[in-house]
Amino acid sequence: MTPATPQPPATGPRRGRGRPARGSAAEGPGARDRILTAARNEFAERGYDKTSIRGIAKSAEVDPALVHHYFGTKEQVFGAAIELILAPAMGAPDAVHGGSPEGAGERMARYFFATWENPVSRLPLLAVMRSALTNEAAAAVLRGLIERRLLMRMARDLDVPDPKFRAQLAAAQIIGVAMLRYVIKMEPVASATVDEIIAMVGPTLQRYLTEK
Amino acid sequence: MTPATPQPPATGPRRGRGRPARGSAAEGPGARDRILTAARNEFAERGYDKTSIRGIAKSAEVDPALVHHYFGTKEQVFGAAIELILAPAMGAPDAVHGGSPEGAGERMARYFFATWENPVSRLPLLAVMRSALTNEAAAAVLRGLIERRLLMRMARDLDVPDPKFRAQLAAAQIIGVAMLRYVIKMEPVASATVDEIIAMVGPTLQRYLTEK
Repeated sequence: MTPATPQPPATGPRRGRGRPARGSAAEGPGARDRILTAARNEFAERGYDKTSIRGIAKSAEVDPALVHHYFGTKEQVFGAAIELILAPAMGAPDAVHGGSPEGAGERMARYFFATWENPVSRLPLLAVMRSALTNEAAAAVLRGLIERRLLMRMARDLDVPDPKFRAQLAAAQIIGVAMLRYVIKMEPVASATVDEIIAMVGPTLQRYLTEK
Repeated sequence: MTPATPQPPATGPRRGRGRPARGSAAEGPGARDRILTAARNEFAERGYDKTSIRGIAKSAEVDPALVHHYFGTKEQVFGAAIELILAPAMGAPDAVHGGSPEGAGERMARYFFATWENPVSRLPLLAVMRSALTNEAAAAVLRGLIERRLLMRMARDLDVPDPKFRAQLAAAQIIGVAMLRYVIKMEPVASATVDEIIAMVGPTLQRYLTEK
């Protein structure tokens, strides 16, 4: 699968002459996308604590008031940025449910590891995990987003008791492997092939997703 | 089980009069323990990046040279501190292998969650995860310590193919649940009872640890 890549910032000519009015949407139609891309990059590089509205505005070449105008508080900008970062993972429910029930675990594992194996999507995902680990507000934003966008859709079509609990335990297995493989880099899990991992992890996910 | 708690810093009278010689071990027999406890607390509170030898020395009320004298570089101090932090987890191999093979998965789950459920051991463990996520050197120190002290002993007595890989996948399941339960605090996994978690996770660990 192809991870969603952020829209390149629009660099066309600005409307009108000179500097646009502060806090208005007058900086051109590309300003919102440019801010969002800047926010994604700032959060991914610096983590939640060290990212500021001012820094995002500077990177996007807009006035800080425009960041507030489009996205609100720092937490809300973070929410919009991680929505972009997590976009590659959001297809997971369709992948899991789009096939025979007995292949659900393997499809889930294959979907997430394809996302994690791609550095373009992996590095921002690690940044999101880091932000959640270091900041309560960031953890709350992440929690809400995963709940609304991923977990509810994943659990809705599971025919097991406690489907949300089951979906979380499956997600936990993948998150834990990601920690050991990409962050702590322990051998042999760090250099195992994705197929070797899926052969062992797929049946675990299958049990959570389908066994009553 | 009772997680190991750090020795309280020795606060007895110092030997001799006045300030002891710089860089020597003359600050009394309690100095080493005091430095180690200070290092543990500093790393747990600030994470790897923001902790300095100078800050540890200040907190332990010793000269920075004494920190170097006992522990060497910042990485080495971190290694000693996380060895203390991870001490509660180090009994896992004995717990896993100390009973019938068919109960190994449940014993592993029960052992680790008892450690994680206790805030005294949980908070420093989260700090170690945070440090590993934010700093390559910290990740390398953690990797070496887990490898030498935990994984080798855990894998040695497993009668399965690729025992280290299996032990890591089991550990990954627990680390992932810890992330969702204690850091992101997603429901229902955040407020499930330990028994509910173990009922679902135990069979997963069991399969990794014993099924060929």
